[in-house]
Amino acid sequence: MNNKLGIGIVGLGRRGMALLESCILPREDVYVVAVCDLYEDRIIRTAEILKEAGKPEAKGVHDYREILQMEEVEAIIITSSWEEHVEIACASMYAGKYTAIEVGGAYSIDQCWQLVHTYEQTKTECMFLENCCFGREELLLLSMVRHNVFGELVHCQGGYLHDLREQIAYGKENRHYRLRNYIGRNCENYPTHELGPIANILDINRGNRMLTLVSVASKAAGMREYLQREKGVSYKEKDSYFAQGDIVTTVIQCARGETICLTLDTTLPRPYSRGLQVHGTKGMYMESNRSVFLDEKDNKFDLEWNKKWNNLEEYFAEYEHPVWRKYLDEGIRGGHDGMDWLTLAAFFKAAKERKPVPIDIYDAASWMSISCLSEESIAKGGMPVFIPDFTNGKWLVRTPWNVEG
Amino acid sequence: MNNKLGIGIVGLGRRGMALLESCILPREDVYVVAVCDLYEDRIIRTAEILKEAGKPEAKGVHDYREILQMEEVEAIIITSSWEEHVEIACASMYAGKYTAIEVGGAYSIDQCWQLVHTYEQTKTECMFLENCCFGREELLLLSMVRHNVFGELVHCQGGYLHDLREQIAYGKENRHYRLRNYIGRNCENYPTHELGPIANILDINRGNRMLTLVSVASKAAGMREYLQREKGVSYKEKDSYFAQGDIVTTVIQCARGETICLTLDTTLPRPYSRGLQVHGTKGMYMESNRSVFLDEKDNKFDLEWNKKWNNLEEYFAEYEHPVWRKYLDEGIRGGHDGMDWLTLAAFFKAAKERKPVPIDIYDAASWMSISCLSEESIAKGGMPVFIPDFTNGKWLVRTPWNVEG
Repeated sequence: MNNKLGIGIVGLGRRGMALLESCILPREDVYVVAVCDLYEDRIIRTAEILKEAGKPEAKGVHDYREILQMEEVEAIIITSSWEEHVEIACASMYAGKYTAIEVGGAYSIDQCWQLVHTYEQTKTECMFLENCCFGREELLLLSMVRHNVFGELVHCQGGYLHDLREQIAYGKENRHYRLRNYIGRNCENYPTHELGPIANILDINRGNRMLTLVSVASKAAGMREYLQREKGVSYKEKDSYFAQGDIVTTVIQCARGETICLTLDTTLPRPYSRGLQVHGTKGMYMESNRSVFLDEKDNKFDLEWNKKWNNLEEYFAEYEHPVWRKYLDEGIRGGHDGMDWLTLAAFFKAAKERKPVPIDIYDAASWMSISCLSEESIAKGGMPVFIPDFTNGKWLVRTPWNVEG
Repeated sequence: MNNKLGIGIVGLGRRGMALLESCILPREDVYVVAVCDLYEDRIIRTAEILKEAGKPEAKGVHDYREILQMEEVEAIIITSSWEEHVEIACASMYAGKYTAIEVGGAYSIDQCWQLVHTYEQTKTECMFLENCCFGREELLLLSMVRHNVFGELVHCQGGYLHDLREQIAYGKENRHYRLRNYIGRNCENYPTHELGPIANILDINRGNRMLTLVSVASKAAGMREYLQREKGVSYKEKDSYFAQGDIVTTVIQCARGETICLTLDTTLPRPYSRGLQVHGTKGMYMESNRSVFLDEKDNKFDLEWNKKWNNLEEYFAEYEHPVWRKYLDEGIRGGHDGMDWLTLAAFFKAAKERKPVPIDIYDAASWMSISCLSEESIAKGGMPVFIPDFTNGKWLVRTPWNVEG
């Protein structure tokens, strides 16, 4: 296909379709060779979409292993349910395909080591598609940190703060994997949207590492009340048991002494936020009111803090990340405020050039491990849990993260 | 003195003088019988202030026990350094004086039990002067909670978020007790400004109780950098060791399943805040942008969250606490946005009427205990620590907190 990258997509739920339509079909340098899903209707719908877009027909299969055997497929994008990510990713690496995994948390530490071992045995690149690492504000903050605006970093916060009650409540109807996870597990089940950018800011796996965590969960009250309200009298009380606490607070200690506080808040009413905070010896940033507060600048004035709200805007001129400077010039594309486009573009670029991916297996393993480690800590009443060094010492020599402009 | 309440003040530092000038001298129903401080210059200064205000002369002593022996003294206000609060409060209760303690954290669990045992033996009332329990916004939130605006409560957050670097750095020059505490201790050293109002909201010691906590401290970088900048070349490197981490995160689990997340952030640049958040099944409040977000009201609109910032203002009309409704009518007085006045007024009222104080020994003991328990948890790498039931079961029968309008 004239130097185009042939790809396979495994998982055609909402996320897979969103990436296909917003970040893959518009590209001329990649084409879809094959798609896979357990549900036939999704495969049929995907064929229709490809046809409508004037794209070549793709093979539709129910078993992802069929795709892995196709030589024309050079790269695999895994947008399946959380539970299948690791198995498929490892199989894909063994098959020698450039591999991209959508985000989620791990179910066991063993799973994280499987990813690492498979990569180390195969040397096949596997990228963790943490789109928030490519967020405009997240990259602005990274740029400000690299310019020492905040001084020595001391503490970061973030959260997955997203009211998902409707998606969870109708999990049977819409075949969404969150429902069963919320019924069965109690943990920081989705840490990477906030942790990924924070890890980059704090040089995690690149000069620093996460050492221990403690995790504490609140009671589970949000879903029960929501279900009883939305599903009315026909709703069965016995279906209202959820293991997942409404709010989970996790505190991570890093090797260099920084702390990271993560919040999961997905089953109570609230506006969407990733709750980013960066605290250093020279200043701080807080997403909830988008304010930057700098020593010797902002504290020289006896202003009300609300006069500073939204002043992050003032910092784009000087500190906009080169990736976003270029992207804004060229025009933002794709979903999630343009982050998805940059993320997949970085993956396709690496795959075409046979180069390392920017968010690699060590990031994937360590970030994903927070889910099962938090589950352990919560189950033990908040006990501190040791976070394995998935790099086996390589974090001491790896250089700080950045992406190309 | 014609039914006036005779009081003694122990501790004439900045806090004692502030209360004297803003909340005691303006009152006609109390008069100062005696004052105590270790430093003679403070006693002399206090005598001058009393004279300038046209008030009767007060006896000035260096040993608080002299004041406790004076029959004319009916009530004692303890505004000494943190380390002396409990000893003086217990001696005051044994002397049968209505006792008020300024806020701070405990150094040991034994200290907390001393307070409880002394009260239970003497039945002398002792009030914990947590002025933030009388804050206008804190009481508004309490009122909204009582009106079920937020539904079933699930999680609260708060912090003592106050850049104290200057006060700490010049602790030798200004004889402030924070310096030695920050050098020697690493803990949530000042939890009650945020925890008091949250405890009232969550019925702690009154139908609910705090069960366990975990506490994690960041590195200590803020004071060292500040001292080196402010004190220049003459500054000795050996004086830059601080045990106290810059940011301490503490997560408390409650008997009814709620979680409370506390943050201490006092040695890095930042604007002042108490960081209050209240999360329930029907909505939430966040102090950092002063927004209320309610289910079926605010999430029906696809508004940007910043359109909701500062909308707390809309709720005062309906939910202003009766205490503040009356106070605003009469005119706000005293320091700290008027909270100090209400706090001392509540103490004086109880003392004059020989009635129970509104923030009692069980509140004092349990709230203060967070400091030494967090020190233990941090020292053990974030281990969960059990919080004693200082009421010995009375929390199951005590009724929810409120103050009179």
